[in-house]
Amino acid sequence: MFETRFQTYWADVDAAGIVYYPHFFKYVEQAEEEMFRAAGLRRQPLIEKLGIWMPRVEAFSKYSRPIKHGAAIRVRLNPRIIGEKTIRYDFEIVDDLTSDRLASGYVTVVCVDTAFKSTRIPDEIRNVIQNA
Amino acid sequence: MFETRFQTYWADVDAAGIVYYPHFFKYVEQAEEEMFRAAGLRRQPLIEKLGIWMPRVEAFSKYSRPIKHGAAIRVRLNPRIIGEKTIRYDFEIVDDLTSDRLASGYVTVVCVDTAFKSTRIPDEIRNVIQNA
Amino acid sequence: MFETRFQTYWADVDAAGIVYYPHFFKYVEQAEEEMFRAAGLRRQPLIEKLGIWMPRVEAFSKYSRPIKHGAAIRVRLNPRIIGEKTIRYDFEIVDDLTSDRLASGYVTVVCVDTAFKSTRIPDEIRNVIQNA
Amino acid sequence: MFETRFQTYWADVDAAGIVYYPHFFKYVEQAEEEMFRAAGLRRQPLIEKLGIWMPRVEAFSKYSRPIKHGAAIRVRLNPRIIGEKTIRYDFEIVDDLTSDRLASGYVTVVCVDTAFKSTRIPDEIRNVIQNA
Repeated sequence: MFETRFQTYWADVDAAGIVYYPHFFKYVEQAEEEMFRAAGLRRQPLIEKLGIWMPRVEAFSKYSRPIKHGAAIRVRLNPRIIGEKTIRYDFEIVDDLTSDRLASGYVTVVCVDTAFKSTRIPDEIRNVIQNA
Repeated sequence: MFETRFQTYWADVDAAGIVYYPHFFKYVEQAEEEMFRAAGLRRQPLIEKLGIWMPRVEAFSKYSRPIKHGAAIRVRLNPRIIGEKTIRYDFEIVDDLTSDRLASGYVTVVCVDTAFKSTRIPDEIRNVIQNA
Repeated sequence: MFETRFQTYWADVDAAGIVYYPHFFKYVEQAEEEMFRAAGLRRQPLIEKLGIWMPRVEAFSKYSRPIKHGAAIRVRLNPRIIGEKTIRYDFEIVDDLTSDRLASGYVTVVCVDTAFKSTRIPDEIRNVIQNA
Repeated sequence: MFETRFQTYWADVDAAGIVYYPHFFKYVEQAEEEMFRAAGLRRQPLIEKLGIWMPRVEAFSKYSRPIKHGAAIRVRLNPRIIGEKTIRYDFEIVDDLTSDRLASGYVTVVCVDTAFKSTRIPDEIRNVIQNA
């Protein structure tokens, strides 16, 4: 499990004064990038070096409470390798102050080669996932 | 069923040269706004006049193929009223030229009053949904 | 002079209910893409084929009136080639219904090769600009 | 002068692998929000309490170097009160590691009342600016 904190900003909210709902997935991806950084790596240069892409194939979120403008949040990421080629990131977004659950869901990622053919997750990625 | 066409732009793509995956939900919401417009209404002034909000409570997308930079897409929206207070928008995003499926999923919306208590969907909204 | 119309959406507005100000530049760039499309070309594949990049080096906007949620706008683009290597897009954004000026400004673009060294604007680009 | 650090993410970059240029203004606004937070205040609740809006009336940026994907940046904000009703934020964005200048420019803000009539900047805002 990996957890990281983000501040939300005016740029993230919609006219209802709450974070626009697709942005929740942006926070999840930011958390994934921070998870790699916490392992001393940078996600994008790493996957380029390995000659792969990691496209998202499914995304789901249940929205429990709105994220108010200017709130700080924590994203909890629980990554699991499924089979040889798939990573599933279960996530939970909580209020930084109250720890109330704001949203939860998952994002599924498949490892593909540069011809977009699914391929085994390289060990360098596998290690980051398994140690998170 | 409501269908509408969008052009994608440079601003929508990520460094892989394809539309950043949370933006698919943005297109779905744009289609919802166009559905109201096609009924001669504007979604936001309408819900403000009715004294309600329509927060998203669930969002799911399966990504079948990437949307390349500069592609045109069509969003097909199939809205259904579930119970008294919930709208489910099943969607499909297809390539405008080939009609290939690019993504499909749903977004669930609950009707709430200004105190964020769930409430019956007003007839004005109901009519738009049922005639789509 | 090239002019194109855009619908604005919920995703574009901030918590004040008006289009978030950096998005005005997104509309300007969308207009640039439409200008190439109107010439039967697609900007991005074209510049990739030509082996160049067209980074923005300056951007300025004066905001005269807010763009309300759900408004339609027209972007007027007046592109000029300055010297051998620079394009300046003077722009004006007007309300689609009233033609009131909402914003005006410019975006300056320099043509560079893949090593980011400034280079002469290729004729294919030049033709689009000069015929706009 | 106020300075704050931001991490850039995949969501911020375009297909050239660099931060999409309108997002530079997003970072400037985030820095403005952090400046209020550093003063123990929150910008948005404060301006709502004061019954004002602070719309942007001009924005300018010169782009010196691209911000690469995954880079960290620092935004330096130099706010000045001009006359009674106007704030000008001169900004500079530098690379967090090398301190190389990436962009510089300004954003001008006018204080208006709820009827959008320009009005004197309240002392609470003035204090934040003058102590930054």
